[in-house]
Amino acid sequence: MPVLEPRLYYRGAVAVQVAVIGSGAEHTERAEAVGRLLAERGCTVVTGGLGEVMAAAARGAKAAGGTTIGILPGERREDANEWIDHAVVTGIGHARNLAVVASGDAVIAVGGSWGTLAEIGFALRLGRPVVILEPGHAVEGVSRASSPEDAVELALRLLP
Amino acid sequence: MPVLEPRLYYRGAVAVQVAVIGSGAEHTERAEAVGRLLAERGCTVVTGGLGEVMAAAARGAKAAGGTTIGILPGERREDANEWIDHAVVTGIGHARNLAVVASGDAVIAVGGSWGTLAEIGFALRLGRPVVILEPGHAVEGVSRASSPEDAVELALRLLP
Amino acid sequence: MPVLEPRLYYRGAVAVQVAVIGSGAEHTERAEAVGRLLAERGCTVVTGGLGEVMAAAARGAKAAGGTTIGILPGERREDANEWIDHAVVTGIGHARNLAVVASGDAVIAVGGSWGTLAEIGFALRLGRPVVILEPGHAVEGVSRASSPEDAVELALRLLP
Amino acid sequence: MPVLEPRLYYRGAVAVQVAVIGSGAEHTERAEAVGRLLAERGCTVVTGGLGEVMAAAARGAKAAGGTTIGILPGERREDANEWIDHAVVTGIGHARNLAVVASGDAVIAVGGSWGTLAEIGFALRLGRPVVILEPGHAVEGVSRASSPEDAVELALRLLP
Repeated sequence: MPVLEPRLYYRGAVAVQVAVIGSGAEHTERAEAVGRLLAERGCTVVTGGLGEVMAAAARGAKAAGGTTIGILPGERREDANEWIDHAVVTGIGHARNLAVVASGDAVIAVGGSWGTLAEIGFALRLGRPVVILEPGHAVEGVSRASSPEDAVELALRLLP
Repeated sequence: MPVLEPRLYYRGAVAVQVAVIGSGAEHTERAEAVGRLLAERGCTVVTGGLGEVMAAAARGAKAAGGTTIGILPGERREDANEWIDHAVVTGIGHARNLAVVASGDAVIAVGGSWGTLAEIGFALRLGRPVVILEPGHAVEGVSRASSPEDAVELALRLLP
Repeated sequence: MPVLEPRLYYRGAVAVQVAVIGSGAEHTERAEAVGRLLAERGCTVVTGGLGEVMAAAARGAKAAGGTTIGILPGERREDANEWIDHAVVTGIGHARNLAVVASGDAVIAVGGSWGTLAEIGFALRLGRPVVILEPGHAVEGVSRASSPEDAVELALRLLP
Repeated sequence: MPVLEPRLYYRGAVAVQVAVIGSGAEHTERAEAVGRLLAERGCTVVTGGLGEVMAAAARGAKAAGGTTIGILPGERREDANEWIDHAVVTGIGHARNLAVVASGDAVIAVGGSWGTLAEIGFALRLGRPVVILEPGHAVEGVSRASSPEDAVELALRLLP
């Protein structure tokens, strides 16, 4: 099982974190699959903690017994969707998008609009590997995957 | 066991999060006790993820089999101390202090300098219960405790 | 005239920036005096851009022909009070408090509640000189002034 | 003169703010032209306050007698380039990109890499009009201009 752990030296217990970003109700099924597959590979799923793609990815991860982190834009923990284990309440609005992708050892984009584009920009700026699950933003030089399975495989392969 | 869980409705699995803030090498022993006691009560320990008080609180929590979240100021997960389970990489410098206290259902201050004062201010601004473990900043109207045991008891009692 | 200009080398045109922080309707008169006095000394007044103390300080500065910067927590320039010349729209909520004090070469606190305490903490953390106009938060080791005149004199004398 | 002023009601003195974003030494000449043209139209030029495109846009604005705001990622005012009139020191790293575009009534992108892509994403998320000066990022649905003159004309025409 080729799960790479960036901090293997720590009791073998610290998980790879993968950020799942995006939006759009039409993408929830695929986001849920991404979350589930990541959890099956032992990865913690990091999202923005709210609805649609964020909720679906977390729901998928929990269904597979995984762990989820939600990095919220507002000031209330209660804003987190119900599949968030660990809620980080930032209070910094859209600027929390930086924290979402920075907290991923890799990033998978599922659907998404302008906030997602900002996240992809930040992820690339910080050198995080990014995979765009098709359809999605067209960003030159960024890896693309045609299925949740391929997106997860590719993201894990790109881990530093 | 009077642990209050703000999201008991969620499978009984989502933990109360308590932020432990502060700094100062001379406070690490008491910070470690605070972390341990919180973990024994089922609370997740949230810190700024770096050294001294932050590391000691996380170390104490892990020694008691607890869970830890580190909310880092920089852009690298590797900056987290070795007792952090879930690393949130914010990239926003001292502004991450807001996220640390906002992510706590309650906040315990152990020692600390000006950054800690900023955190106490933010915690009060957001309505988070704050307990200052003596000695520590003098802030009017804020609860004080004379031992780690009292600090944890008081913080849990003040939970919303 | 002992106005120190941190960037005098630049055409003599770049002004000292002084952040005026605080809140409370009962402090507006003194905040307005602080803003006026700062403008008379050639300083640009930096505030959080909203009401009460923030608006009063900017109003005072404009009455004396000065220049004002408002660093807003929200996402809309329209939130700025009408005495703001240059609106900085941060979108990061209370975390913009860090930017307010960091943008001051010195900081004067007029009244204020918990948000102001967070700002004082951040200002001290960043090494900015801070003057608290009485009455106000009691913070050990921070200079205090009993009148707007004294506060401005002291702040300018403490400039790096 | 078709300069639209979002706050004309305020003594006619509050200027339109246009954010100029981007990077790349090969784009400085065109960035300088953009800054100059904006200043000639009465607009304040907002940038990230550092080098290359940011410095060139500010330099152009100052050469035309304009006003400049630099929104810095670090904690020191001294980091601002020498053409910045008003330095906003955020301390929040790349998250300051959000503040740069949010502070523009319109946004013009000149060259740029991943940080610029994040800014474009945020600008669109916040509903700010964006013009990309060619060559530059390809973002579906975003206006493009082939010269600094066209970019400035188009940005001003798109003002809300």
